[in-house]
Amino acid sequence: MIVEMEWESAMSHISTPETAADLAAVAALLEMADRLGIVPLLERGEPVTVTELAVAADVPEEGMGRFLGALVAAALLEPTGVKEFRIADDFADRIHQSGYLIWSLRANQPYVQHPAEFLRDPVGSAAQYRRDGREVAVSSRWIGSRGFYPAATEAILAVRPKRIVDLGAGAAGLLIDLLGRLPESTGVALDMSGGACQEAARAAHAAGVGDRLTVVERPIQSVADDPAPVAGADVIHAGFVFHDIVQEGDVFDRVLRRCREALRPGGIMAITDAVPFASAERERRFSSLFTYLHAEFMDVSLPPEEDWLARFRQAGFDQARCVPHRFPGGRLFIAAK
Amino acid sequence: MIVEMEWESAMSHISTPETAADLAAVAALLEMADRLGIVPLLERGEPVTVTELAVAADVPEEGMGRFLGALVAAALLEPTGVKEFRIADDFADRIHQSGYLIWSLRANQPYVQHPAEFLRDPVGSAAQYRRDGREVAVSSRWIGSRGFYPAATEAILAVRPKRIVDLGAGAAGLLIDLLGRLPESTGVALDMSGGACQEAARAAHAAGVGDRLTVVERPIQSVADDPAPVAGADVIHAGFVFHDIVQEGDVFDRVLRRCREALRPGGIMAITDAVPFASAERERRFSSLFTYLHAEFMDVSLPPEEDWLARFRQAGFDQARCVPHRFPGGRLFIAAK
Repeated sequence: MIVEMEWESAMSHISTPETAADLAAVAALLEMADRLGIVPLLERGEPVTVTELAVAADVPEEGMGRFLGALVAAALLEPTGVKEFRIADDFADRIHQSGYLIWSLRANQPYVQHPAEFLRDPVGSAAQYRRDGREVAVSSRWIGSRGFYPAATEAILAVRPKRIVDLGAGAAGLLIDLLGRLPESTGVALDMSGGACQEAARAAHAAGVGDRLTVVERPIQSVADDPAPVAGADVIHAGFVFHDIVQEGDVFDRVLRRCREALRPGGIMAITDAVPFASAERERRFSSLFTYLHAEFMDVSLPPEEDWLARFRQAGFDQARCVPHRFPGGRLFIAAK
Repeated sequence: MIVEMEWESAMSHISTPETAADLAAVAALLEMADRLGIVPLLERGEPVTVTELAVAADVPEEGMGRFLGALVAAALLEPTGVKEFRIADDFADRIHQSGYLIWSLRANQPYVQHPAEFLRDPVGSAAQYRRDGREVAVSSRWIGSRGFYPAATEAILAVRPKRIVDLGAGAAGLLIDLLGRLPESTGVALDMSGGACQEAARAAHAAGVGDRLTVVERPIQSVADDPAPVAGADVIHAGFVFHDIVQEGDVFDRVLRRCREALRPGGIMAITDAVPFASAERERRFSSLFTYLHAEFMDVSLPPEEDWLARFRQAGFDQARCVPHRFPGGRLFIAAK
């Protein structure tokens, strides 16, 4: 027999939102949806049926029905009819938040699980414990869906560029968004990953901008010796790739010089990247993890803000500036030619 | 050159706390600390040196120094001297919150990563993809540090019990806490895990209550045929173990009857456990994940609240009631003899 008064009284003492439990559960459920391959279908925002989703995931319909029931119970989906659902209004926010959890605890699992081994034998451990490229790509894309590029987008649109190049473009999310807003412009998406380039071409066509986007499968380092992909650009952007070449002798400097030479007069160079151990209250925890994982496990020392600006000056840019970011520890470094 | 005005203006637009990034980073850093074996040393709350922690983790001192630097940058530790640190004031909260993330995304990883396989072939997948018992135990303990038992503790202390039995006691955290507050009382910690029983005995001695705690290595099912461990108790508690025997025929009923018979007059039976798909806003997301993982991957159907209460009545308790919990979906079912 339930004593209603007591229940109410007890409940009033535990009204604190369970933020950590909420975020953890949502991330686990969304990772399952990702593993089932149904996130793109859901993200369209249109009603979808259990049958469509079961076919897409190649699993029995009853099982998919139970999983979708769990997503409804967790407020990620809403029923729109008999065995038909659509995503809740905050789905995009939930994807973005989950990106941080999945990047930290799943994509970096080989590091997070073996710190003692890395501290004792960095080289042997780096060879033995490797990250799953797909987990890194998916979680980075989920973080990036809201966190990486709003500052860059704003700065780039202000230039009204005819031609935009993105170095380390991944699946070209930033370029596809920009070309959609600038119907006269063309773009170049450069990335060293064949898979990312294929996805970029596919996504550009799906978004109706495929005829204005050139995809180039190459590492950013190649620009030091062959600047053809950046030629005649009004904007050259590079997101989270320059930190990978910090330790490679003069390559960073040569790539940045070639970019400056290639830009049209009045064009801008924009680098979205990270500084180490950002200390603001809203940044310090994630920035610490991001910095530490790169330094200890990936042999990447993120340059401090002054260092990024000095590298711009060295390459001939005289007005480089640093704009903060939503992504903790993220910065937009920007300079006009 | 940094344009200060622009920086300030841009920063003012991104003052939102990055809750998801914060929680994710803290959980990853604390999991690393756990893997390094330094959490117990830190949790004492006294200042500790880099050397002590490096020795405990068996890693080079410089490497431990860099890791502790990351923990300071993330506001988890505070320096108290040269190469000496203590935990920040909110460390216990951070451990508790991280428990939810690590349970959801790390301990249940074999399930979260392979939903399609389980939906196609539940039996084969259950044999192939198994959880790591240590990850489950650590993350459950971290959640339980604040979430599981405050309601039970309050209800048990109100009875002023002389003898307390905990079924599925794990490392006996609840009993050690209770015996510390009730210096005249004795307790019995029953658990089927040998490792948990060893840890319970060790922890009880460390807490100075070892002479008043009996540890019994047995499954809860054994009480159905041999109620000796529960004999003469004023309080019998069971946390998150009865749901494991829901499907085992009449075992649940027989265990509960033996408990009722064994209780002294006026004694109480208290079960901390979970109901399926709790729908309150603060519970629904984690409760959905918890319910779905148990049903689809562990073959455990959590009984609804009415079902728990009916089982109490069937075993001869006539005043069972249900008290809510901080743990999302958790309930305390309690009945006097």
